Amino acid sequence: MPGQLVECVPNFSEGRDPAKIDAIVQAIAAVPGVALLDRQSDHDHNRSVVTLAGAPVAVGEAAYRGVEKAAELIDLTRHRGAHPRIGAADVVPFIPVEGVTMEDCVRLARSVGQRIWSELKVPVYLYEAAAQRSDRANLENIRRGQFEALVREMGTVAERDPDIGDPVCHPTAGATVVGARRFLIAYNINLDTPDRGIADQIARTIRTSSGGFPCVKSMGMMLASRNLAQVSINLTDFERTPLHVVFEAVKREAARHGVEVVGSEIVGLIPARALEMAASYFLQCENFRPELVLERRIAAVMENSSVAECAESDVRTGLTPKD
Amino acid sequence: MPGQLVECVPNFSEGRDPAKIDAIVQAIAAVPGVALLDRQSDHDHNRSVVTLAGAPVAVGEAAYRGVEKAAELIDLTRHRGAHPRIGAADVVPFIPVEGVTMEDCVRLARSVGQRIWSELKVPVYLYEAAAQRSDRANLENIRRGQFEALVREMGTVAERDPDIGDPVCHPTAGATVVGARRFLIAYNINLDTPDRGIADQIARTIRTSSGGFPCVKSMGMMLASRNLAQVSINLTDFERTPLHVVFEAVKREAARHGVEVVGSEIVGLIPARALEMAASYFLQCENFRPELVLERRIAAVMENSSVAECAESDVRTGLTPKD
Repeated sequence: MPGQLVECVPNFSEGRDPAKIDAIVQAIAAVPGVALLDRQSDHDHNRSVVTLAGAPVAVGEAAYRGVEKAAELIDLTRHRGAHPRIGAADVVPFIPVEGVTMEDCVRLARSVGQRIWSELKVPVYLYEAAAQRSDRANLENIRRGQFEALVREMGTVAERDPDIGDPVCHPTAGATVVGARRFLIAYNINLDTPDRGIADQIARTIRTSSGGFPCVKSMGMMLASRNLAQVSINLTDFERTPLHVVFEAVKREAARHGVEVVGSEIVGLIPARALEMAASYFLQCENFRPELVLERRIAAVMENSSVAECAESDVRTGLTPKD
Repeated sequence: MPGQLVECVPNFSEGRDPAKIDAIVQAIAAVPGVALLDRQSDHDHNRSVVTLAGAPVAVGEAAYRGVEKAAELIDLTRHRGAHPRIGAADVVPFIPVEGVTMEDCVRLARSVGQRIWSELKVPVYLYEAAAQRSDRANLENIRRGQFEALVREMGTVAERDPDIGDPVCHPTAGATVVGARRFLIAYNINLDTPDRGIADQIARTIRTSSGGFPCVKSMGMMLASRNLAQVSINLTDFERTPLHVVFEAVKREAARHGVEVVGSEIVGLIPARALEMAASYFLQCENFRPELVLERRIAAVMENSSVAECAESDVRTGLTPKD
């Protein structure tokens, strides 16, 4: 585990042409020190989502290379798809994972945004934690009316002025939204009822927009294959509203309806910290801290492996069980 | 996180002379690629315990260097201490952590043992998973009567013959017990009662020796500072009897006595896997697998970072939530 780790999840407006998608992915993966974690393309959305991680400088470079390749290959005037978009490279969020702050990611977003404008002449909007105007924290405000509206309104409607660059839409690559946000955990909880209404009610109880927990998006769904209702959850800041808090709340609310939780599933990836928090909570652990995790400790020692330093800290912690 | 990770927890029969202890620790830490995780010395026991980790070859080399230095500096004929011991380097267990099997650690133990005999003329007993005789799986059988008995009996009593080397005790360094074992988790659960008898009863219910779970050692204790009874637990194989299984059993048994669990504490280090297993259990996760953990995935990709390989596996997993 390197000392500093940033994740980036750029979204590109091409989900059908494998040659173009591959070229973008390869431009990203070619940057040394970058780990390509995932790639997904959706034909209906006509959109691809790439997940990469690494040290901040490498990830910033790789994100830029992807945007550059997308601007070269994608022509938004010919793009049709179900998913809203304003740019060839549509959204580029940076996410702190390890040893970096949200402020570091905001700085990274702004510097990559600056480069996108100055080298590619694609104007840039800054969103979420990197937003410079409060109405731009929310991506949907920026994307309203999509590329087509942006082309008409940029330069005319002052409210459409980008955060970086001149108010001139790139003729084929549109504009790009760059920002910084927390890691998003996607998590579903299955109920032993075919009554979707119950899942809907539970979703309303827990989600932020209906007065529930902070940083929770949620809706009821049907798991058709098993004829079960499901509470589908996005946690946008699991340090503020932890996974286990939401799970326990769903369990309690389900019990009020005489319904039980039969299982749950993690969609995509989950940070180790979220699992550690859950384990520590359920085990009622009084002294838990991440440094107690063997692998973290090994990684930390491997990094700054000064004998003196280690010896000193170890005298304090006093850890080892004996044979 | 390197691909292959072994932990080693050598125990040395010197806990009072800082110069000697430092020399042993430094001999270990000087080996490149070795992370010194912990060191502890106990005056009453007159014993020091060092925890190190790294790739198998580096850890084997470092363990040998520590044994060599201990054999040079420690004279067991002058050693007094509360803890049983038969050697200057008394016990050297190798523990698989990541990407290595128990069999790998058994092989490592035997090869380090061979070197201890051939270069230092210290005879070696093999214990736990590395044992070649079933009665030697248990360390206490090997250590019976300690160094003093061994000096008298080696060469005379056939049962005392070492597994590696001639049946001749090293005059000052004695013999060394080398082996391979699972990671040991030390874990205490606190009850809201000052009645130690309840903790004793619960300990008897869960521990292997009284017919409880496999791989569990346990006893009742008093947490004097808080006037609480405590169930003190060693898990010698948390994959066979997971932490959460023991926790839930203690909670259930406590409830039978009208007592509640008020908290728990992890003593020393805990492998990430044990926490992941607990989180997954309590969250009723249906699809959990270690590869869903962000940091593990990053480490795995960083290691064999072939773009093609990654792209292929990712098409299968289909992970990323979208912006």
